[in-house]
Amino acid sequence: MDDHTTLADLRQRVAEFNAARDWEQFHTPKDVSAAIAIEAAELMEHFLWRTDEQARAALQDEEKLAKVVDEMADVLLYTLVLANALDVDVSAAVMAKLERNEERFPAEEWRGRA
Amino acid sequence: MDDHTTLADLRQRVAEFNAARDWEQFHTPKDVSAAIAIEAAELMEHFLWRTDEQARAALQDEEKLAKVVDEMADVLLYTLVLANALDVDVSAAVMAKLERNEERFPAEEWRGRA
Amino acid sequence: MDDHTTLADLRQRVAEFNAARDWEQFHTPKDVSAAIAIEAAELMEHFLWRTDEQARAALQDEEKLAKVVDEMADVLLYTLVLANALDVDVSAAVMAKLERNEERFPAEEWRGRA
Amino acid sequence: MDDHTTLADLRQRVAEFNAARDWEQFHTPKDVSAAIAIEAAELMEHFLWRTDEQARAALQDEEKLAKVVDEMADVLLYTLVLANALDVDVSAAVMAKLERNEERFPAEEWRGRA
Repeated sequence: MDDHTTLADLRQRVAEFNAARDWEQFHTPKDVSAAIAIEAAELMEHFLWRTDEQARAALQDEEKLAKVVDEMADVLLYTLVLANALDVDVSAAVMAKLERNEERFPAEEWRGRA
Repeated sequence: MDDHTTLADLRQRVAEFNAARDWEQFHTPKDVSAAIAIEAAELMEHFLWRTDEQARAALQDEEKLAKVVDEMADVLLYTLVLANALDVDVSAAVMAKLERNEERFPAEEWRGRA
Repeated sequence: MDDHTTLADLRQRVAEFNAARDWEQFHTPKDVSAAIAIEAAELMEHFLWRTDEQARAALQDEEKLAKVVDEMADVLLYTLVLANALDVDVSAAVMAKLERNEERFPAEEWRGRA
Repeated sequence: MDDHTTLADLRQRVAEFNAARDWEQFHTPKDVSAAIAIEAAELMEHFLWRTDEQARAALQDEEKLAKVVDEMADVLLYTLVLANALDVDVSAAVMAKLERNEERFPAEEWRGRA
């Protein structure tokens, strides 16, 4: 679906879900940021105490992969909730960030360096 | 830009940035998840020790809002890096999650309840 | 118990627990740091979508307070695991940090300011 | 110092630092939990994009180790701030947690298993 789904489409869908529940009142930037951090921690938990090889192996298991994807969706969901609350364009924000990173990390200089 | 930018567009742009630097080798699910959590914490930091009112006031300041948007972009960037690494469709993941949440939290029952 | 329990006592108890399970092998600084972050997120979750007043009220409930204390204990436990893994003195680290903070934040200047 | 520093000593020192600045007013459980999570993320950041071997090597560098210890001290500091705010005994909390974990993870059964 990523090929034909715009950021506006996803944001609209998220906005409707929350409007139907009258949940926008809870979506202060402070709480939504905490929610993103909490979901990110749940995502991380899937890889805790595992080597990179063990993590990769676990992701071959469809059920485990589904759980990881589910946490990733939660991170994205709350990020879109924040974008809606702040009324900012996320595509523009990501593009602007990548442009700044192009300058900070010139490709020739940073190739292969973490 | 959100109106005409698809998730595939953004993912492609992120993928090109990383391919130009040969950085995909560092993007293990474990490290990318940690990166998302770190950026989420930096986002949270803007609201720390502030009441919701103070946070709202700070976001009226264009410079402070820009910093918050920048951290939000970082969270989104690394989430797309993870989607690329796992080769999963994020729109489908978000839509599926919202559908499950529709069932878990029926609108009539949950209206106005956190 | 805090009156007569030294940091060395607690660290020793944590070390014995892990030695009995041969778990030190998993306690890389990277994984233990992630574990601390995950437990901190679980702690935060108790206060999500709650105003400070609601959070305070919840902590009057003994069962809820016990859950919060339990997450706090987990954060502390993994911090002591990290101290053991790095073989550093945590009391000295905390004292040194407080001394630096005394200089960074002179009491007269910072009184009542976040 | 860990040998002769009690948890009460450290808590007292932290309490005095904050009282001198009249900072207890900011120490809601919600904000202190967020502060712990933020410091934990800063700790994690030292190990990001590094293999366990690279992390271990970095910790041989005294300056880098000092930074890691500094973040660890921050996690501990805020955990003690929370303990002071909630007025709970942290030694008792850690001991109780270890006892529960002894039952959940019998040593013979869990030896060497993450």
